[in-house]
Amino acid sequence: MAQAIPSVLSLENEVFRSFLFYSCILVLKMLFMSPLTGSKRMKHKAFANVEDAKGFNVKPKLDDNVERVRRAHLNDIENIPLFFVAGVLYTITNPSVYLAKMLFLVYTVARVAHTIVYAVVPLPQPARGISWVTGFGITVYMTVMSLIHFL
Amino acid sequence: MAQAIPSVLSLENEVFRSFLFYSCILVLKMLFMSPLTGSKRMKHKAFANVEDAKGFNVKPKLDDNVERVRRAHLNDIENIPLFFVAGVLYTITNPSVYLAKMLFLVYTVARVAHTIVYAVVPLPQPARGISWVTGFGITVYMTVMSLIHFL
Amino acid sequence: MAQAIPSVLSLENEVFRSFLFYSCILVLKMLFMSPLTGSKRMKHKAFANVEDAKGFNVKPKLDDNVERVRRAHLNDIENIPLFFVAGVLYTITNPSVYLAKMLFLVYTVARVAHTIVYAVVPLPQPARGISWVTGFGITVYMTVMSLIHFL
Repeated sequence: MAQAIPSVLSLENEVFRSFLFYSCILVLKMLFMSPLTGSKRMKHKAFANVEDAKGFNVKPKLDDNVERVRRAHLNDIENIPLFFVAGVLYTITNPSVYLAKMLFLVYTVARVAHTIVYAVVPLPQPARGISWVTGFGITVYMTVMSLIHFL
Repeated sequence: MAQAIPSVLSLENEVFRSFLFYSCILVLKMLFMSPLTGSKRMKHKAFANVEDAKGFNVKPKLDDNVERVRRAHLNDIENIPLFFVAGVLYTITNPSVYLAKMLFLVYTVARVAHTIVYAVVPLPQPARGISWVTGFGITVYMTVMSLIHFL
Repeated sequence: MAQAIPSVLSLENEVFRSFLFYSCILVLKMLFMSPLTGSKRMKHKAFANVEDAKGFNVKPKLDDNVERVRRAHLNDIENIPLFFVAGVLYTITNPSVYLAKMLFLVYTVARVAHTIVYAVVPLPQPARGISWVTGFGITVYMTVMSLIHFL
């Protein structure tokens, strides 16, 4: 049932190619959190380090507008690296092409939406909850399917 | 001595298959930290965001029962992704099957134990120290062996 | 233009071998942050957990010397795992050997420098800014090149 891995982890495998594409998007999305944090720190003059605050003649302080972006970033850190691992595991199980591509697409959309409703245009719940649980559920599903496959 | 990688990163390689299996367990273990944090937030009504606190008629606040789970989660984030990388590096060095499988098993048990004694049933030291240093030492060992191999 | 992946992700590919080598260095660099944090916690008797503080007859407290190392560690966590993913993506695009090896080398030097000027011998800005943006720019470049390749 399972193909040999060399053919699964190759650009000829549509599932792997799709995974690589969405991985690029997710890496760029996560990288974007750093300049977003930086711009909020500038705007609210809220810096974590004395050497940064000094340039603006302020003392280091916390600001919830900055902390909100940092919580969104931390949520990415908690979730997206596990998707990268789960995505490779799942690709190795040689899943249905259509289902795999849908899962990668929906995951990526959910994580972009999570960032927007958390840190760009804060929306009332359950906007953030729904986008988070969608990504979480997809990662759990892919990992459980992989676990069953590798037992 | 080293086999070509296509045969090392394949399901025919018992070391790689073992690594994939324990990776599934570790991904699920890390994912579990999010609902654990959520349940502690509910129980102690301690939320980080106004839109979450509002639903419980409280203000955002810190609670050490929540923060303890978050520290355990952060410790996972600091350590487990490096194990995923070190595990692939080490697998590529084509190590002894028995040793590699033992290292992956002991690492996984140590990290599950770390979570339990840190965040589920907090125990006095050195319970947490021992479980942490076991995982840390295994990651250092695998990475140093890989570095020597790739020099 | 693109080779089949089995030959790209093999030790015969100089780009991949170089990526594996620098990955070892970066894993060890990140692992080093934990004992560095531990030594600062001892020195300043600033612990996060009651069970750790108890051994020193103190209460848990924050100390900026510890927090500075933890910010440096968190910055690693935000950036280096994305380099591991971006490095694999970029290697799969079969880039110029010389350019790829230079990017991996400069990235590694920049991240080691970042840790030194942030947490070992704190220097005034722009030392930290320059080392951070060098690593960030390289990750963005590798990911955008990969995205174009996989479109």
